[in-house]
Amino acid sequence: MAESINTDETRELIASSKVEGTAVYDPEGERLGTITNFMVDKRSGKAEYAVLQFGGFLGVGADYYPVPWQMLSYSTDHGGYVVDLDKDMLEDAPRYGNDDAAPQYDADYDRAVYTYYGVTY
Amino acid sequence: MAESINTDETRELIASSKVEGTAVYDPEGERLGTITNFMVDKRSGKAEYAVLQFGGFLGVGADYYPVPWQMLSYSTDHGGYVVDLDKDMLEDAPRYGNDDAAPQYDADYDRAVYTYYGVTY
Repeated sequence: MAESINTDETRELIASSKVEGTAVYDPEGERLGTITNFMVDKRSGKAEYAVLQFGGFLGVGADYYPVPWQMLSYSTDHGGYVVDLDKDMLEDAPRYGNDDAAPQYDADYDRAVYTYYGVTY
Repeated sequence: MAESINTDETRELIASSKVEGTAVYDPEGERLGTITNFMVDKRSGKAEYAVLQFGGFLGVGADYYPVPWQMLSYSTDHGGYVVDLDKDMLEDAPRYGNDDAAPQYDADYDRAVYTYYGVTY
């Protein structure tokens, strides 16, 4: 077949395994980092958090930043997600490192993250 | 710390990377296979299809079976997903192999899969 068909991505859908590693850009189109993975509600299948890594790009190290999924918008132009974040916003943002106690993602944590980013829970 | 905190899974949420590889059981509790990955709506973050592999368990080889996400229910007892599928149901089910032309996941495909499983789209 002449055309290449990609299992991993169509106009509307993307494979979970492809979201992992997808680039994240700021609104000006500068590459900020990547999506490590995302936290999904087990029952509904709804993505709640994208877990972002900035790889030192913003001087914020390799920590994991859970960001409410609805802050991300997909850009077909970039072939990645756009999120309105900058270094100042990330300075005190909820995060965890490889060696940290990881978040429980309980109601308190949800509230803290959503409040931090000013997103309605 | 005495307690082990798992980043990948909480009571409500599970990391996308952990869904991949999660076991799938039939309603009687027999292990059918695993979730390879899942197809997510890029914008809404909603899981639309789980892509299942049965690893020869049902004699259906290593093909990929896209199954509407809502057919899966999460079982904390099993620590995996339960889906009401058997060999007969899978015999003519939509699938693709590693070497096949992969599905486009367009409206026609969606309709075919959902109709096959008798799920409202």
